[in-house]
Amino acid sequence: MMSIQKSMIVDLYELTMANGYFLNNKKDDIVYFDLFFRSIPDSGGYVIFAGLETIIEYIENIKFSEEDIAFLKSKELFADPFLDYLRNFRFTGDIYAFEEGSVVFPNEPLITVKAKAIEAQIIETFLLQTINHQSLIATKASRIKLAAKDKKVIEMGARRAHGESSSIYGARSSYIGGIDSTSNVAADLLFNIPSKGTMAHSWIQLFESEYDAFKSYATIYPNNSTFLVDTYDTLKSGIPNAIKVIKEVLLPIGGKSYSIRIDSGDLTYLSKKARKLLDESGLFECKIVVSNSLDERIIETLLSQGAPIDVFGIGERLITAKSDPVFGSVYKLVAVEKDKIIYPKIKLSDNIEKITTPHFKKVYRIYSSEGKAEADLITIHNEVIEPTSPLTIFDPSATWKSKTFHNYILKEVLVPIFIKGKRIYELPTLSKIRTHVVNELNTLWDEVKRFDNPHKYYVDLSEKLWLIKNDLISNHK
Amino acid sequence: MMSIQKSMIVDLYELTMANGYFLNNKKDDIVYFDLFFRSIPDSGGYVIFAGLETIIEYIENIKFSEEDIAFLKSKELFADPFLDYLRNFRFTGDIYAFEEGSVVFPNEPLITVKAKAIEAQIIETFLLQTINHQSLIATKASRIKLAAKDKKVIEMGARRAHGESSSIYGARSSYIGGIDSTSNVAADLLFNIPSKGTMAHSWIQLFESEYDAFKSYATIYPNNSTFLVDTYDTLKSGIPNAIKVIKEVLLPIGGKSYSIRIDSGDLTYLSKKARKLLDESGLFECKIVVSNSLDERIIETLLSQGAPIDVFGIGERLITAKSDPVFGSVYKLVAVEKDKIIYPKIKLSDNIEKITTPHFKKVYRIYSSEGKAEADLITIHNEVIEPTSPLTIFDPSATWKSKTFHNYILKEVLVPIFIKGKRIYELPTLSKIRTHVVNELNTLWDEVKRFDNPHKYYVDLSEKLWLIKNDLISNHK
Repeated sequence: MMSIQKSMIVDLYELTMANGYFLNNKKDDIVYFDLFFRSIPDSGGYVIFAGLETIIEYIENIKFSEEDIAFLKSKELFADPFLDYLRNFRFTGDIYAFEEGSVVFPNEPLITVKAKAIEAQIIETFLLQTINHQSLIATKASRIKLAAKDKKVIEMGARRAHGESSSIYGARSSYIGGIDSTSNVAADLLFNIPSKGTMAHSWIQLFESEYDAFKSYATIYPNNSTFLVDTYDTLKSGIPNAIKVIKEVLLPIGGKSYSIRIDSGDLTYLSKKARKLLDESGLFECKIVVSNSLDERIIETLLSQGAPIDVFGIGERLITAKSDPVFGSVYKLVAVEKDKIIYPKIKLSDNIEKITTPHFKKVYRIYSSEGKAEADLITIHNEVIEPTSPLTIFDPSATWKSKTFHNYILKEVLVPIFIKGKRIYELPTLSKIRTHVVNELNTLWDEVKRFDNPHKYYVDLSEKLWLIKNDLISNHK
Repeated sequence: MMSIQKSMIVDLYELTMANGYFLNNKKDDIVYFDLFFRSIPDSGGYVIFAGLETIIEYIENIKFSEEDIAFLKSKELFADPFLDYLRNFRFTGDIYAFEEGSVVFPNEPLITVKAKAIEAQIIETFLLQTINHQSLIATKASRIKLAAKDKKVIEMGARRAHGESSSIYGARSSYIGGIDSTSNVAADLLFNIPSKGTMAHSWIQLFESEYDAFKSYATIYPNNSTFLVDTYDTLKSGIPNAIKVIKEVLLPIGGKSYSIRIDSGDLTYLSKKARKLLDESGLFECKIVVSNSLDERIIETLLSQGAPIDVFGIGERLITAKSDPVFGSVYKLVAVEKDKIIYPKIKLSDNIEKITTPHFKKVYRIYSSEGKAEADLITIHNEVIEPTSPLTIFDPSATWKSKTFHNYILKEVLVPIFIKGKRIYELPTLSKIRTHVVNELNTLWDEVKRFDNPHKYYVDLSEKLWLIKNDLISNHK
């Protein structure tokens, strides 16, 4: 791709609206936007929030080049003073967000932007694209890792990804979600994600025989040999040749970490047969890698059938999130500020689930005394909830459903990332983000993590916030 | 994204195999690879081939930087002479391909690469990623445009795309597939694809009233006003305010090209009501734009119910190809060349549909005398078929099914793109590619283009090729 400013990855209407704010003297109006989603991919119980680092880089570097300005001028849509303003554009507002790798739920702000109207508007497209893509893949990866239990999982979807960024940030998001390694060298280069590889059928076809191909590979990579056994006949040719090479070539030169890979056929049947053949030859250490359009559902089935698989290679169904490839975060105006007073704003809709929750807000996570996450409570930004007295929360759309907590721990989960355009948040390493994901998943009940009909985690509104929302709805009637 | 050489968007095993070829003195062996797919997304009848331009750019610029070499060295997998070799790496082989925008079918080579083994292997990942992504979206776009008939379609999926390249090349592929415009400014900047925009709910919320918001927009964009009418109440507030502003503000200042946009609710019901209200106000020229998780199936339903829609805005279901987000091209070794003799190679598999068609091949498209595409015939590279005598083709897996053509036109459809590493193909403009798509679709029978149970277009093998394939299968038994 030709190199472009990321500011130009933007829906045209962000810029036409920004021009309009400028011409209406609204450019310095302070607005609040929430980025949130309404439903969880795959009807799952949780989402892993990913993409924050990419957004931080974007915000810190956003600008318009002279070429960009000239291009925009050529559209004959924008006022010259606005284009001049874009020349010195930078982000000067505040951003609050969940930390990358947090578990998050529908209808709570993942990111809150407080900024001048133009700034808040212009960053919308990139923020949504980034969070939608990376959270989608991190969540899918987390489900796959959950299904794979203690088995290793390799992300190897580069060839089926939706372009370069899909493959590279898909690998990073997969790693955040718990995947162990990637086939994608770029992801290793950029993010230090361990890259792994086996061999392709072409390798085998380029030698006189399957045996020769395995032998040559074993000689070159004695500590990294994975023999692809399904080129000609898995059970009659591939596995016997692999066993022969391991015993005759690999072990004599001190080789270790060897495995076979099955890429077609019935993986339960073949992995069981393979395990038997390997064990009968004394190759108890030889691992079995499988691949071929796998996802969390197929992994569950394979393992429940006792398939003796050690490593899952996951391609297209992870990198595209095939079973549900859209994560639908939206970015909505929730308040405007005038003379330091914040006025909550609402967006109604003919679709009731599209009505937004107004106001500048904060989010408390409520934990049981054992540290299990029980509910998230959204409050107005200046409400303070002290965990000293019993806390009653209620379902915002069915208010008679309530729950009272007695012994509980409260945590504010949105952290300030930028204040007045300055980053005040220290970027965690990728390895810290991975640890955070593991810790976060440990706070969830298994019922929330279940694939089928998971328990719906509570995300409720404080009474004050609920009243404001309902008042605004009534006022518009 | 940090800037990287595209050579590093590669599965690790391509490089470990390449290192192996190098160490086995196979680096100068000439090999032939075919890029092809086995099934059509959405169980459709055809695929639009897209991504060739991106691949040409990639091939012309492929190289490894000193940083890349240092990184690879740090993996402790590669021999130093191999890393030295990569320092001067470039592609020196031949590439044949369908022209971008062609209609293509399962099990025929879309691209054939003849090159030294290392070169052919290293480019695999990027070629697959590019063709898989771009052809997927171009094909989906073509289906959507087919359903929309003479209505306009805007691609507006940037916020749900799988990262930057997904959004930018997704917009380009959508445009190739027939979509009329995009919301994505980067796609306009890079590829000159007309960018379009309306307004977001935030625009309306930032004004005192919906009327004020519309009025301000109409004043700034008198020739580009689309009023988003579902912020508060589509029928009771949005449309009446739009009508008022069009009549009181827009028309008096000579505004033209105005429309309303409905983004929620029942689009058939609301568009019919909207049309009635607009027509009753004499605003016959006012267009109706709709959006909200649309795809070709929903567009078909809306139009069949007589929804008076003029423009469809298509987001997530196009940019992610949601209903079937994986296009599964593969890249398989089909021959090796030694002393100018080509030896066909086959890959067997426990999955019968994974058996490849061997040899360096060419593809003829057979047209009826009226110019309708009837079948593709794959032959050995040096077979010549003259359309002077009747031509009988047969189903390669059910050979008793045959068809004889008497009056027909033949066209060789793979064109040389690179010969000995030099591009000999002139890149067509995007507009030429779009025209090519239209022409190509016109050669297809409606039966092939139908969404439900489309006619399966014939892709057959010449008798010579069929015999070679069967011989190779038998030899491996």
